Amino acid sequence: MTDSRLPADTDDFSQVAPPRIEFIFRVRIFFELRQRFEPTTPMGGRVYVPPAGGDVRGPMLNGRVVPYSGADWARGRPDKCAELNAHYMLEASDGTPIYINNRGYLYGRTPDGVPVPPQVVATQTAPNPSGATQWTIAPDTYFVITPVFDTPVGPHDWLTRHVILGRGRRIPSPDHTVFDYFIVNPPKNWPPR
Amino acid sequence: MTDSRLPADTDDFSQVAPPRIEFIFRVRIFFELRQRFEPTTPMGGRVYVPPAGGDVRGPMLNGRVVPYSGADWARGRPDKCAELNAHYMLEASDGTPIYINNRGYLYGRTPDGVPVPPQVVATQTAPNPSGATQWTIAPDTYFVITPVFDTPVGPHDWLTRHVILGRGRRIPSPDHTVFDYFIVNPPKNWPPR
Amino acid sequence: MTDSRLPADTDDFSQVAPPRIEFIFRVRIFFELRQRFEPTTPMGGRVYVPPAGGDVRGPMLNGRVVPYSGADWARGRPDKCAELNAHYMLEASDGTPIYINNRGYLYGRTPDGVPVPPQVVATQTAPNPSGATQWTIAPDTYFVITPVFDTPVGPHDWLTRHVILGRGRRIPSPDHTVFDYFIVNPPKNWPPR
Amino acid sequence: MTDSRLPADTDDFSQVAPPRIEFIFRVRIFFELRQRFEPTTPMGGRVYVPPAGGDVRGPMLNGRVVPYSGADWARGRPDKCAELNAHYMLEASDGTPIYINNRGYLYGRTPDGVPVPPQVVATQTAPNPSGATQWTIAPDTYFVITPVFDTPVGPHDWLTRHVILGRGRRIPSPDHTVFDYFIVNPPKNWPPR
Repeated sequence: MTDSRLPADTDDFSQVAPPRIEFIFRVRIFFELRQRFEPTTPMGGRVYVPPAGGDVRGPMLNGRVVPYSGADWARGRPDKCAELNAHYMLEASDGTPIYINNRGYLYGRTPDGVPVPPQVVATQTAPNPSGATQWTIAPDTYFVITPVFDTPVGPHDWLTRHVILGRGRRIPSPDHTVFDYFIVNPPKNWPPR
Repeated sequence: MTDSRLPADTDDFSQVAPPRIEFIFRVRIFFELRQRFEPTTPMGGRVYVPPAGGDVRGPMLNGRVVPYSGADWARGRPDKCAELNAHYMLEASDGTPIYINNRGYLYGRTPDGVPVPPQVVATQTAPNPSGATQWTIAPDTYFVITPVFDTPVGPHDWLTRHVILGRGRRIPSPDHTVFDYFIVNPPKNWPPR
Repeated sequence: MTDSRLPADTDDFSQVAPPRIEFIFRVRIFFELRQRFEPTTPMGGRVYVPPAGGDVRGPMLNGRVVPYSGADWARGRPDKCAELNAHYMLEASDGTPIYINNRGYLYGRTPDGVPVPPQVVATQTAPNPSGATQWTIAPDTYFVITPVFDTPVGPHDWLTRHVILGRGRRIPSPDHTVFDYFIVNPPKNWPPR
Repeated sequence: MTDSRLPADTDDFSQVAPPRIEFIFRVRIFFELRQRFEPTTPMGGRVYVPPAGGDVRGPMLNGRVVPYSGADWARGRPDKCAELNAHYMLEASDGTPIYINNRGYLYGRTPDGVPVPPQVVATQTAPNPSGATQWTIAPDTYFVITPVFDTPVGPHDWLTRHVILGRGRRIPSPDHTVFDYFIVNPPKNWPPR
């Protein structure tokens, strides 16, 4: 279905080079509270999940998650996929404030990529008798985000002009979430000296 | 400049009735921290202003502001007008969670409505020697918002399907902010029994 | 439910003055196409409704709707309320471009303000045998929006720093939509000379 | 800067595997009009850039860009980086409507990744005497986006639950833009049969 006004182009897309992706830092967050809007809202599911703290470690940023500096107000969809939408604060080890708005998708999926029924992941948020969260989650959970950042002009401002990709996973005992972040198409002189 | 395909219409707009506006509740919030992203960010000004607590009182809603449940991450513009963008949680007296996303404008203005230079409102956030905030603000401060809400299906869900208008003002001693909210075009049977 | 750290406040809210609201202009738009994403999307309903043209008339702005300069991509919710989210362009009679992002709610409602079942408004979008749209809409349709504008520095830039309120209604023969817009809390010297 | 409540973790991040990235389709778009909001808006730069048409080709989607179905209303920042924010429609070859909201960054950059002064890219949008656009752009232009999609339940609905990454480039004669899109962390059974 080619637009005739456009020049002929390859039909062999196997040679298209993917963007460069490089690891920049890892954020680990305690999400102690997971408040669901029960039973549902007029527009679908909604949760309030504030970060209780955490750390930031890696080659390009070190610091902490500012406790109770915001939350994830993810929306639950009819197809059981959650649209993440978190707003909170990081603080670099040099004291710089960093605002993060994290958007993406979270759902347990089948080998074909379709969200699995909720009962499969039901124990994900239910505490066991000892008080710890059970983690019988779907074996292939999709948990990818593309955060947008804001931070003052200075050593960390590259965060405000690059697309960043993140991948999450949940860890039990103690219950926390790990996000690994990657820069897409970093500059030629990377990492900065 | 009339579109010729459209029917003739009045040129006398003096009779256009404004929307009905009715007071619904007042929210009072402690904003103890006002963190500016100094000196600026690559995209302009940014602040992080979390609510430290507060209350909700009025004919249509009573409850509290959940402390440190989010923040205002307002952007400062070159023309000195702030674009407010706050996300936080209210809790109704019956325990219902209510998510609020508050957007609008805040600036000191001249009689012609133009934002005044920042030095005029400079003492707005500087504490005086006794620790209290000085409030030599511009005499005519524009502070109007249009929040969007989400809350479970039930007695408060009217918040999710009506345009709500809010007006803010700042009060010293102790330093807090008062928001009066109004519903636009309420239903015929209003207030609900 | 008063926060004890806050000063005593009135319990008589009957005297709270509403914000000032003044009519500014009327926008009439042809929406010739109403494409629904059938049968639904994974996140709910979605439509694509581009403006085919229209005019702007009133004391504070005259001009036109730029044809096919964007669309309303409203989301349909399970409760039958539509969350409007339109992006398109106006052009003032002096040639100034004006970007509008219109957000709000549209639904037929009962006297208690609850959205009515869809079959009640089913003929709203179905053409009759003669090709004209039937308009057997719910007698009390909620259709209120709060647009956000952007426009160059100059005579129309007041649009970028005031909360604006809009009210819509649909007119048959020819099928078009009328939006009346109002400024909230205009400056002291209003309208400008 | 480790949170002491969290378990010990590696300090060797060199082994962190990047997300899987696979090419899915290419979109070529004519952007014939590039309207700047001159000289600037109260909040910074703004453009209106509607798509005049184009095509979609690749292993996972074929179709067209619906002409004048929206626009990019990118904001220009003081640091010369543009924040892209486009809304428009694609149509798959089977007739399915696909809404795309494309967000990301565009700027000419130095080897250190800093946006270059605007005069370096000034000829980017100026037509030459023959009417064709000159393309003396910065040699290393950052042009990466992360679109969000909506489309009906069916063969293309995977677009609504995966993070998608895009990379743009501009081609002269005729002046058009090419976007290569990639899926992040595709399902096990990918591509679908």
